[in-house]
Amino acid sequence: MRHSMSKPEEGAGVSSTQPASRARKPFLAALAGERQARPPIWLMRQAGRYLPEYREIRCRAATFLEFCYTPAFAVEATLQPIRRFGFDAAILFSDILVIPDALGQTVAFETGEGPRLEPIADAGSLGRLAEEPDWNRLAPVFETLDRLKSALPGDVALIGFCGAPWTVASYMIAGRGAPEQAPARLFAYRQPKLFAALIERLVDASAAYLVRQLAAGAEAVQIFDSWAGLLPPSEFERWCVAPIADLVAKVRAKRPDARIIAFPRGAATQLGKFEHMPGVAAIGLDTSIEPRAAIEALPGPVALQGNLDPLALVAGDAALDRGVDRVLEGFGTRAHIFNLGHGVLPETPVEHVERLVARVRER
Amino acid sequence: MRHSMSKPEEGAGVSSTQPASRARKPFLAALAGERQARPPIWLMRQAGRYLPEYREIRCRAATFLEFCYTPAFAVEATLQPIRRFGFDAAILFSDILVIPDALGQTVAFETGEGPRLEPIADAGSLGRLAEEPDWNRLAPVFETLDRLKSALPGDVALIGFCGAPWTVASYMIAGRGAPEQAPARLFAYRQPKLFAALIERLVDASAAYLVRQLAAGAEAVQIFDSWAGLLPPSEFERWCVAPIADLVAKVRAKRPDARIIAFPRGAATQLGKFEHMPGVAAIGLDTSIEPRAAIEALPGPVALQGNLDPLALVAGDAALDRGVDRVLEGFGTRAHIFNLGHGVLPETPVEHVERLVARVRER
Repeated sequence: MRHSMSKPEEGAGVSSTQPASRARKPFLAALAGERQARPPIWLMRQAGRYLPEYREIRCRAATFLEFCYTPAFAVEATLQPIRRFGFDAAILFSDILVIPDALGQTVAFETGEGPRLEPIADAGSLGRLAEEPDWNRLAPVFETLDRLKSALPGDVALIGFCGAPWTVASYMIAGRGAPEQAPARLFAYRQPKLFAALIERLVDASAAYLVRQLAAGAEAVQIFDSWAGLLPPSEFERWCVAPIADLVAKVRAKRPDARIIAFPRGAATQLGKFEHMPGVAAIGLDTSIEPRAAIEALPGPVALQGNLDPLALVAGDAALDRGVDRVLEGFGTRAHIFNLGHGVLPETPVEHVERLVARVRER
Repeated sequence: MRHSMSKPEEGAGVSSTQPASRARKPFLAALAGERQARPPIWLMRQAGRYLPEYREIRCRAATFLEFCYTPAFAVEATLQPIRRFGFDAAILFSDILVIPDALGQTVAFETGEGPRLEPIADAGSLGRLAEEPDWNRLAPVFETLDRLKSALPGDVALIGFCGAPWTVASYMIAGRGAPEQAPARLFAYRQPKLFAALIERLVDASAAYLVRQLAAGAEAVQIFDSWAGLLPPSEFERWCVAPIADLVAKVRAKRPDARIIAFPRGAATQLGKFEHMPGVAAIGLDTSIEPRAAIEALPGPVALQGNLDPLALVAGDAALDRGVDRVLEGFGTRAHIFNLGHGVLPETPVEHVERLVARVRER
């Protein structure tokens, strides 16, 4: 661990062993296409339920959204894994469903049940959404980023994020996580024009949201398309690739230097479609793809991020070590950011994360 | 519809417009690598809950397993979609979990809940499994195939099947369908030797089971690896590819002429591994793969089976027509068997299946 282990007061920063002025950010170097002997590392869902210190503060807010919208909590949750593990990047603690929330859709999180939204069933419920997000509602997110900027050690990068239009829309239509996202896929087949209108609304809202995150202090942003892999190829082009390309273009129109990571989870055979999307600096890879196949599909200069199986991290021991080594060796020839293929699972033992970080840092 | 629509008595055959002697089986021609202007068609789960005549007979058996193990019911359920739609192949009505059942594991199906098994947690519960399946328990399956042989029209092929070792093992470990099959994946990471022993037991049992199905009248067999796509590449090789190769080799040792279809669902980037598996005549493709990419990954002579989105079949109308046309055009240059990318969904309107069959037959 590079950073202080002492548990600071809530909202306090993380003390770095390096002065900020001297610090170089390995994560940003990788996004710039630089290959490093020891890849930078962060983990999707590195903050959250597997950490006892998170569970301790989580119960201080009545709802998950209230927690996300309270900068003191969101800052602290973002910093906790940096303190413990010294990751090379901190990711804003928030949720992809703040966008539907800010567009006026009812969003709630039920403990152990996942999100529940008032489903969008027709043109009527779509018409009731706001034209653009309620920026007052989202102000605490920008405040959180602003506070994180000064709280983070000088060598740790700050990542913002949003959900991709397809993935966010899939929750907005189904009202929850549904098997194979069938409700949204059916909606898109049956009412493609209405679905396109929803996607367009989400592209605009998400672009404006990311631009504001970058202005508030995010040094890179990741677009999570967690359910991209459920779209058959023709639908994939229309509802995953095209909206992400639009979203990226709109962000870059306002912030030409924006560093963007696209994470089309499950898009194994379609990765090439993201490579030449101007403005995409890195592509997040899920667990299903072999490093060699990813390198072939994405010859560069885009950086590659991923892709250890989150269950190998739960398993620990030899399975974890072998998994880590395969990722390190597999991506060794490329600008690589070590990550999981999906988020840290709540049942992950903290010691396994320590073991993972040590093994990556051993290089 | 090519076959008589009149609803025969349970267990009665299907009257064909062609005498059996003159009949040629387009499905078997495709498995032999023959490209046909109009591809043969059948659908995974073409029998079952979406058919009113199935729901009518299903309630006559107390449990789903009793239904599967009663030849009169299983024969009738197998024939129903042939009567209605004139598919080119009939698939034995049964379930992949008859193997754990015949090995002595407690298996039950709860209505609307899916399967429930007494989970295998350790060496002890694994040790309680029988060395080989109780063939008396499975006798009705062979009796069903024997009756189907004479009940089917002369141009309709008869397909048997089993689950692939990995997919069956995933239910045996978790005791149910679990999100991302996490319990089995963790078990395999933590206790690889014990898991390998279970896989080996399943390879042997499934090979013997398929050999008996072929002896009883099945003209081809399909190996369903429904959860192959959840295995990361290294695990995929070990728990999906190697066991299927073993299984195929063991079947072919007894039946050198066996026609085998491998269906590694979700194995998009790994399809090539099945192409040169001696004895695999066709590869089933799920919805995620573009026909062009499949053709590149599998240059032949193996036949390709798939891969319309089952949700396009639920949606109907233009979405269905476009989906069908894309599949027909995409695989036009190859020996192709039209199918879905996964099973028919219970909410599928019968008229949509009629529309699909008509459109494929229009060619």
